[in-house]
Amino acid sequence: MTLTPLSPAPTAPLDLVHGRIDLTHGAGGRATAQLLDTLFKPAFANEWLAQGNDQALFSVPPGRLVMSTDAHVVAPLFFPGGDIGSLAVHGTINDVAMSGARPLHLAASFILEEGLPLADLARIVASLAQAARDAGVAVVTGDTKVVERGKGDGVFITTTGIGVVPDGLLISGDQARPGDAILINGTLGDHGIAILSQRAHLGFETVLQSDSAALHGLVADMIAAVPEIHCLRDPTRGGLATTLNELAHQSGVGMRIHEAAIPLQPAVIAACELLGLDPLYSANEGKLVAICPAAQAETLLATMRRHPLGTQAAIIGEVVADPLHFVQLRTRFGGERLLDWLTGEQLPRIC
Amino acid sequence: MTLTPLSPAPTAPLDLVHGRIDLTHGAGGRATAQLLDTLFKPAFANEWLAQGNDQALFSVPPGRLVMSTDAHVVAPLFFPGGDIGSLAVHGTINDVAMSGARPLHLAASFILEEGLPLADLARIVASLAQAARDAGVAVVTGDTKVVERGKGDGVFITTTGIGVVPDGLLISGDQARPGDAILINGTLGDHGIAILSQRAHLGFETVLQSDSAALHGLVADMIAAVPEIHCLRDPTRGGLATTLNELAHQSGVGMRIHEAAIPLQPAVIAACELLGLDPLYSANEGKLVAICPAAQAETLLATMRRHPLGTQAAIIGEVVADPLHFVQLRTRFGGERLLDWLTGEQLPRIC
Repeated sequence: MTLTPLSPAPTAPLDLVHGRIDLTHGAGGRATAQLLDTLFKPAFANEWLAQGNDQALFSVPPGRLVMSTDAHVVAPLFFPGGDIGSLAVHGTINDVAMSGARPLHLAASFILEEGLPLADLARIVASLAQAARDAGVAVVTGDTKVVERGKGDGVFITTTGIGVVPDGLLISGDQARPGDAILINGTLGDHGIAILSQRAHLGFETVLQSDSAALHGLVADMIAAVPEIHCLRDPTRGGLATTLNELAHQSGVGMRIHEAAIPLQPAVIAACELLGLDPLYSANEGKLVAICPAAQAETLLATMRRHPLGTQAAIIGEVVADPLHFVQLRTRFGGERLLDWLTGEQLPRIC
Repeated sequence: MTLTPLSPAPTAPLDLVHGRIDLTHGAGGRATAQLLDTLFKPAFANEWLAQGNDQALFSVPPGRLVMSTDAHVVAPLFFPGGDIGSLAVHGTINDVAMSGARPLHLAASFILEEGLPLADLARIVASLAQAARDAGVAVVTGDTKVVERGKGDGVFITTTGIGVVPDGLLISGDQARPGDAILINGTLGDHGIAILSQRAHLGFETVLQSDSAALHGLVADMIAAVPEIHCLRDPTRGGLATTLNELAHQSGVGMRIHEAAIPLQPAVIAACELLGLDPLYSANEGKLVAICPAAQAETLLATMRRHPLGTQAAIIGEVVADPLHFVQLRTRFGGERLLDWLTGEQLPRIC
């Protein structure tokens, strides 16, 4: 009879300065527990994670729930205005908020590549936790897996959010009606061009920052002022042009957009001209398209402009009857062209 | 003025026989929409996905909710008894069910590697959808990203599940009490050894199949018979030994396990002897550990044995008072040894 543990030596403390992820961190045993206890749990500390189970248990207020999930694979992991951690919070919160819901909780799942510096992981986890705190949501449950070197790319993060939709709201992509006004909350293309500026092989730099932000506070103000909002959607991959086409298709309508009304930063215009890109197809991570009855458009605009994330909000066009569901752009020079869906790929791994 | 779309040619139909994933499928534009419309949406068809929004909206019955998430990175993608699609359903449903909850909905997020054959993806998506249907849950929302060749490994799938816990249950890893009985629902190590058999470089084959299965039906029967169940947990990565150590640690107790009472398939015993592995550390994907008051143990055992996923259920040990929280194994030969947490790595990417 022996009472000696199979491996009696305590595991050495994690070296958060020089250490790296290895395959034992994904094995589900002692090294995984150490990684969770040292690096993840302190960052996210909350009553649900403290339950210590493989699932979080909580009560929700009565009402309708929404659920949304997004994988985040952005490269590089750190970029001007954010990183994959904060982006993983903002991206999913925004998808939840675009139903009019108040976001409640997040689940976060990490796929780590062997060799990832623990210092990078700690920075990303801290950023994710801070973004969640700032947004007033808790990361209540999570998972961590490790893949061999060359089978991943540093870290991928999938976040899943749930939220509660207040009674009486009907905000959905199929609710746009001819005559409705189309609004956005600020400048377009900032995230896409900020990421592009970091891709070393493009030899291109800019002072531009990603617009990555959680929009649920802005949405709450908008709904309080104009509960009749018909559609909300965040123009991420594929940009404004693709989002408008999705909404036109889903609602069975057409749209007319006024190019001169679309706010753009000079740095985005310059970068797009240099590289032959179109800012209307460039990704955003802190922007939303809102569609509401024309009679409420000015009220909604004024509300948006009072919020820090809507100071440059604008009415950019209107919904029209069109059996072909075309999105037409009236250019600065008075011409008109179709604004089609994104075809092909502007830039891989933007989010 | 022109009304010609920027790319007027309709996209060619997806070639589900010879086609492969490319980066445009992750760009959020027309190719992404085509992939979703052709391959994903028909497989999962339900009223929530049909909403066509970036989030799913639904009502939930009153009560406490649980939420759980798991990234699945199993290699190979297809293995005896399942594939990454069915595993992604079973893994998350089981984590939800281990709280006593009835699983309601799943979110599924895919990270695809450029070059993945569409035929493989279609097979995986069909398997995931079938497993969800068999389990009575809907995949209500999802996401798809694409990474460059060599930055992923075919497909990774993160699933997030929510469920509703019936009133009156208190099932948690911290509820084990001295005197409680410890049960399992069948043979151990089947999943881990089945995966191992597929790793070509090991030159090892077996007739063994993964035990991958959704356990919520079994759990519902168990709760109906013995609502006083204290703990439920599925011994996945790290195997039974690690799960028992987690529960002992969380509840502040010790455990005594009887090796002779643990059901093992002969093929698992043979493989483990050949390879120097311990089946008590090998992963399972259709097994659960249940801890309940000793007075209810026989009732619980009989209930488990009546269910198809519990025909080989067994009482394998008991909870004891132990300030050191040791899990002790009484061996077949009458000796005793400590059953420690998994240290190191038996086999990477088991789930």
